[in-house]
Amino acid sequence: MSVNVTKTFLPSQDEYTIILEKAWEKEWITNRGSLVHELESKLKKFLGVSNILATTNGTLPLQMAIKALGLKGEIITTPFSYVATTSSIVWEGCTPVFVDIHPEYLTIDETKIEAAITSKTSAILATHVFGNPCAVKEIESIATKHNVKIIYDAAHCFGVSYKGKSIFEYGDVSTCSFHATKLFHTGEGGAIFANNKALQNKLFYHHNFGHKGKEAFQGLGINAKMSELQAAMGLAVFPHLEKIIVGRKRAVQFYKNELQGFKQLKVRNETHWNYSYFPIIFETEEGLLKVQKALNTIDVFPRRYFYPSLEKLPYILSVPSIPVAENISETILCLPLYHDISEIELSTIVNCIKKTMAL
Amino acid sequence: MSVNVTKTFLPSQDEYTIILEKAWEKEWITNRGSLVHELESKLKKFLGVSNILATTNGTLPLQMAIKALGLKGEIITTPFSYVATTSSIVWEGCTPVFVDIHPEYLTIDETKIEAAITSKTSAILATHVFGNPCAVKEIESIATKHNVKIIYDAAHCFGVSYKGKSIFEYGDVSTCSFHATKLFHTGEGGAIFANNKALQNKLFYHHNFGHKGKEAFQGLGINAKMSELQAAMGLAVFPHLEKIIVGRKRAVQFYKNELQGFKQLKVRNETHWNYSYFPIIFETEEGLLKVQKALNTIDVFPRRYFYPSLEKLPYILSVPSIPVAENISETILCLPLYHDISEIELSTIVNCIKKTMAL
Repeated sequence: MSVNVTKTFLPSQDEYTIILEKAWEKEWITNRGSLVHELESKLKKFLGVSNILATTNGTLPLQMAIKALGLKGEIITTPFSYVATTSSIVWEGCTPVFVDIHPEYLTIDETKIEAAITSKTSAILATHVFGNPCAVKEIESIATKHNVKIIYDAAHCFGVSYKGKSIFEYGDVSTCSFHATKLFHTGEGGAIFANNKALQNKLFYHHNFGHKGKEAFQGLGINAKMSELQAAMGLAVFPHLEKIIVGRKRAVQFYKNELQGFKQLKVRNETHWNYSYFPIIFETEEGLLKVQKALNTIDVFPRRYFYPSLEKLPYILSVPSIPVAENISETILCLPLYHDISEIELSTIVNCIKKTMAL
Repeated sequence: MSVNVTKTFLPSQDEYTIILEKAWEKEWITNRGSLVHELESKLKKFLGVSNILATTNGTLPLQMAIKALGLKGEIITTPFSYVATTSSIVWEGCTPVFVDIHPEYLTIDETKIEAAITSKTSAILATHVFGNPCAVKEIESIATKHNVKIIYDAAHCFGVSYKGKSIFEYGDVSTCSFHATKLFHTGEGGAIFANNKALQNKLFYHHNFGHKGKEAFQGLGINAKMSELQAAMGLAVFPHLEKIIVGRKRAVQFYKNELQGFKQLKVRNETHWNYSYFPIIFETEEGLLKVQKALNTIDVFPRRYFYPSLEKLPYILSVPSIPVAENISETILCLPLYHDISEIELSTIVNCIKKTMAL
C-alpha cells in the first residue's frame, strides 16, 4: 500500500460528466454559468451562511479581502498556517506581524494580540487551524476596541460551525479553500464570505474585473471567477458529503483512541468540527523525524503541516523568536486522513508509530 | 438565429471525458498533473516558443509579471485594451500612464512613448491588440535606452507570429489568455512566457506559493496553478485548432471583402495573424449605435471592444485627453466571429450593416 496524508475524493467520472452536460448544452463554460449558481445555492443552504461567492481558488479570496477592506501597513497574523496566509499579506503590499499561537488550540493566541497592535495595524488575519475556531469573541472585542478589521483564513473549515453558526459568519471576511486535498473540493477552488452587503458587493466586483455589465465598471477587479468545469466537480462531490464526513470521523476516532500517548489537537468547546486533519504533536523533532522515516519505509506519507513556522519564510525580515509556534511547527505531524482509509491502513500506521516510539 | 460576438469552441463532451479519464485513473486533479504537463509540451511545440507556463487564467500572469520584474512607480500602457491590462497595474500598486494608440494598428503609438517616460517609469505594458503586434523593435530600443522593462499583454495572440517568431518571444514577459472566448481555450486559463531562465524560475515560484518541494520556499508566491480539469479542455480543443483557424479566416475574408466601406484593422506587415477579432471602425459613434441597434433587432450581438477607453475607469485619476484611443473606442465594433459562423449568418450581418448605413 501507498498512503498519503490525504487523498482527493473523486466521485465517479460518470457523475461528473452528467452534471457537466448542462454546460455543454448551454455552450457556456465560465463567467458565472448556471453550474456555479447552482453550487453557490446548494452550499449556502448546506453551510447555513447568509452569503457566498465561489472563486477559482482559496488564495485569491485572501488577496481580495485585503484589497476590499483597504488594508495598509501591518496585519497581525499567525505563524502557524499554510504559506498562503502570509504570502497573500506580503503580495498585497502589507507587512505581516506574527503573534504566537495557543499551545493546544493551535490558533493565534488572543491574549497576545493587543501587545502587537501599533498605529500601523489595519487588521488581524487569523487562521482557524485544522478547522479549529479561533477565539472569535475575544478577537472581535480587540478589533472593535482598536478599530481594525478581521479576516479569517478558514481554508480548512468546510462544514464547521461554532456556537451554533457557521464559522464563515465570523469576522469581516472569511475565506475557504475547495482545493482537491480538502474534504469538499472543486479541483482548484474556493469561496469568500463577508458580513455586510457593501463588502459583498465590493468583493463581487473585485472577482470579475469590476464589471457592471459589459461596458461599465464599478471599482477595481481582477479575475477570480470559478468556471463551470470546477463547479461541476463541486456538484458531483456534494451528494457524497455525508459519507465523506462519516468516514473521516471514523478514522479520527480510531487515531484518537489509539494515540492517546500523544498530544493531540484540542478542538474548542461548542465547535461542530469537520474531521479535516489529524495531527499528533511529538515531544521532540527527533521523535517526529524517526516516526516519519519509519512510516515512509512502509510507504506511508504523513505531512509536516505546518512546517516551517511562517516567520521563517525567506522573504520575511528577521523577527523575534515565536516560541510556541516554532516548537509546534517542528513537532507536529498530520497523519493520513480521508474518508475511505481502511481499518488495516489505520492499524498499520498506528502500530508503526507505537513501535517506533516504543509506546 | 441568435449570434454573439464570439462562441466558445466546444469539442464533443466525449473527447473531453476520454482525456480526463487519465486524471481519474491517477486520482490527481491539480498541482501540475500529467495533463498540464502534456498541454504545456504540445503548446510549446505548436507555438514555437522556448518556454511556457500554464496558469489558471490570463490575468494572474500580468500580476505575476509585475511582481517578478519588481516593478514600482509608473508603468506606461495603452488605453485601448481589455480592462485587465490596466486593473492589473493598479492592483499591483503601480500607476498606469496612458500613451495614445496608432489610429490604424490600434497598438500603443511607439512614437509617443518617450515623452511619457519619467524618473518613476519602471516598465512598458503594451497590448498586441486583436493579435496585431506592437512595434516591438522600436519599443525594445526605447526600453533599452531608458532601462525599463517590457511586458506584452498578448491575451489575443494565440498562434500569432511576427517576423518569423512567436509573438510570445518578444518583451521580458508575455502573457496569454485561454479564456472560453478565445480561439484556443481551457475554459478559464492562460499562460506566461519569459525571455530568460532566471525570470522563468521566479514566475514558476510565483505561481505556486514559492514552493520548492513540500517544506522549503523560494521566494514569494500565490496560487495561479492550472488544474487537470482545465488542461483536459485544452487538450480536447487542441486537435481542432486547424479547423478553428480555417473557419475564422473564411469569415474574416468575407467581412473584409464585403465591408470595404469601413475602416478596418491594419495588421502589421510580417505578421502571421490568427483571425481573432474582426472590428470595423465607424466615422461616428452615432453610426455605430445605429448599426448595433439594428443588429440587436435581428438577434445579432456584436461587442464594443474596447469601450470605454481605459483612462475613463472610475479608479483612474483624471488624465489629459487621449484623442485617438478615445475616438477609436467610441467608434469601433467587433463583429461576430467564430469558426463555424455560417455564410447565411455572415450575409445577414453584412446586409444589415450596409442597409443601416445606406452603403
